[in-house]
Amino acid sequence: MTDGDQQAYDGCYCPNFHSSIELIGRRWTGAILLAMLAGLHQYTDLRDAIPGLSDRLLTERLKELEAAGVVSRCAETRVISYGLTDKGKALGPILDGLSEWSSEWAKA
Amino acid sequence: MTDGDQQAYDGCYCPNFHSSIELIGRRWTGAILLAMLAGLHQYTDLRDAIPGLSDRLLTERLKELEAAGVVSRCAETRVISYGLTDKGKALGPILDGLSEWSSEWAKA
Repeated sequence: MTDGDQQAYDGCYCPNFHSSIELIGRRWTGAILLAMLAGLHQYTDLRDAIPGLSDRLLTERLKELEAAGVVSRCAETRVISYGLTDKGKALGPILDGLSEWSSEWAKA
Repeated sequence: MTDGDQQAYDGCYCPNFHSSIELIGRRWTGAILLAMLAGLHQYTDLRDAIPGLSDRLLTERLKELEAAGVVSRCAETRVISYGLTDKGKALGPILDGLSEWSSEWAKA
């Protein structure tokens, strides 16, 4: 590796990026975020909307997203609902871009 | 969930998205792609540039990315090198966006 290459890479490598991409890439997390961006907020709606997602994993993923400041939980009424924080909403264009990429390149 | 909510979600949910986000979110994959986007192509350079990444996992991840059509392998000379395909290069703006998001919201 030349010094120039190392410098170029050092400019990009970032532990924050590393943890961010692993957070959103965790099993089911992307699907949960996409469902929330599309307007689903209630726990039961999220569970019903994602085929194959168990209660246990939905709860676990929502807790992780809450801990990361991406999702906030609201239990003011009897119904538990979840909303995207500003940090979570800011993921919208990125996930839309990935959604477009996956459609465009699905057969490549 | 109202019919409208379900419809909004059905419009977004896509198995291709699901597998794409899990591909790029797999442990080390994001860091490898970012290093390649920054100009690193040789196996040894990639290994040396990412702290904590073992030979075994780098090989495994590169094979997965090759199978997904994101990376191509070139062994014409004695040096094994890897390049991003057009599909891989198209991930650039998405990963840049996530990189910016992770810097901007690191402390949120």
